[in-house]
Amino acid sequence: MSLIQLSLPLILASASPRRRELLDQSGLSYIVDVSDADETCDTKDPGEYVMELSRRKATAICERHPNSLIIGADTIVVYDDEILGKPSDEKEALDMLMYLSGRTHQVLTGVTLLRTSHSGILLSRTFAEVTNVTMYDNDRDLLQRYIDTKEPMDKAGAYGIQGMGALLVERIEGDYNTVVGLPLARVCRELGDLT
Amino acid sequence: MSLIQLSLPLILASASPRRRELLDQSGLSYIVDVSDADETCDTKDPGEYVMELSRRKATAICERHPNSLIIGADTIVVYDDEILGKPSDEKEALDMLMYLSGRTHQVLTGVTLLRTSHSGILLSRTFAEVTNVTMYDNDRDLLQRYIDTKEPMDKAGAYGIQGMGALLVERIEGDYNTVVGLPLARVCRELGDLT
Repeated sequence: MSLIQLSLPLILASASPRRRELLDQSGLSYIVDVSDADETCDTKDPGEYVMELSRRKATAICERHPNSLIIGADTIVVYDDEILGKPSDEKEALDMLMYLSGRTHQVLTGVTLLRTSHSGILLSRTFAEVTNVTMYDNDRDLLQRYIDTKEPMDKAGAYGIQGMGALLVERIEGDYNTVVGLPLARVCRELGDLT
Repeated sequence: MSLIQLSLPLILASASPRRRELLDQSGLSYIVDVSDADETCDTKDPGEYVMELSRRKATAICERHPNSLIIGADTIVVYDDEILGKPSDEKEALDMLMYLSGRTHQVLTGVTLLRTSHSGILLSRTFAEVTNVTMYDNDRDLLQRYIDTKEPMDKAGAYGIQGMGALLVERIEGDYNTVVGLPLARVCRELGDLT
């Protein structure tokens, strides 16, 4: 049972377990289908970047799903116009977390929603949501213990706000779920408009 | 494994499953022990109100737990200086949700942390955290479908941000977990100071 009534199958073009948990929270039924999309992107503007990657993820699978709704999404962490991806090792994770400590950074999630017909894309919407995240002035020992949990290693900006990373965060401004990886309320509302 | 090292047993003086889920997220070990505390309170100031109730919940069980750390907490929803509790029926839930739609309200969580010795309370800290929550301009049909899920009925302000209620919320300012029911980061950090 969900608050939003969809008359078409819903496809999530993302392998992220955090995005699946968010969609589960909405009560919507969906299937996951992921295809390799080219993730190299020359755009320097963070909003353009996440929107372009969300578009590629959604369009990469659209031919396999006629008469459906497709969600593509991409999330990045930005501080001082610099995009922070996933850390390559523990040292880089510690550097990122030290860099973000005591400061406010942005988390951007780009989303593309596609409505396909029997022969192609009928409607398309792409947007980006931004949430400000302010970290406590975390000391190195605390951050090292966080890294020892391994939680940071597969996450943009080296933290997960929905896990133990919550202990590092003082406050946010915006949609919490944008930080987790999918601005759930806006996605559900816009999906309702597309059916 | 947790980021915070506690050298004493931790007791949660709350039966709320949402508070338990938050403490689980922190990785801390704890037990739950709840005693009936008097929840009638004449205070009109919302901050004083949640702090007083958190204090009562924590002190109600402190004699049973020497040499321990105890957490008491209470959460309320406030709009225009009016405290909204749990709805008594579906009509009141709809009234509350219509009232909050398109507006920004406050969620307050009061917390009391006690450090007991072998003979009584050794240290005590009480604080309140406030988070602003802005609702979408939700229409009556959507809100009625939300009420049909039964989710609102046991929740202050008639919504749960960690459930399908997320679809009603546009943005927040503050700690997300204060809205869920426990400002987890601050609680864990202050617990670390008490041991």
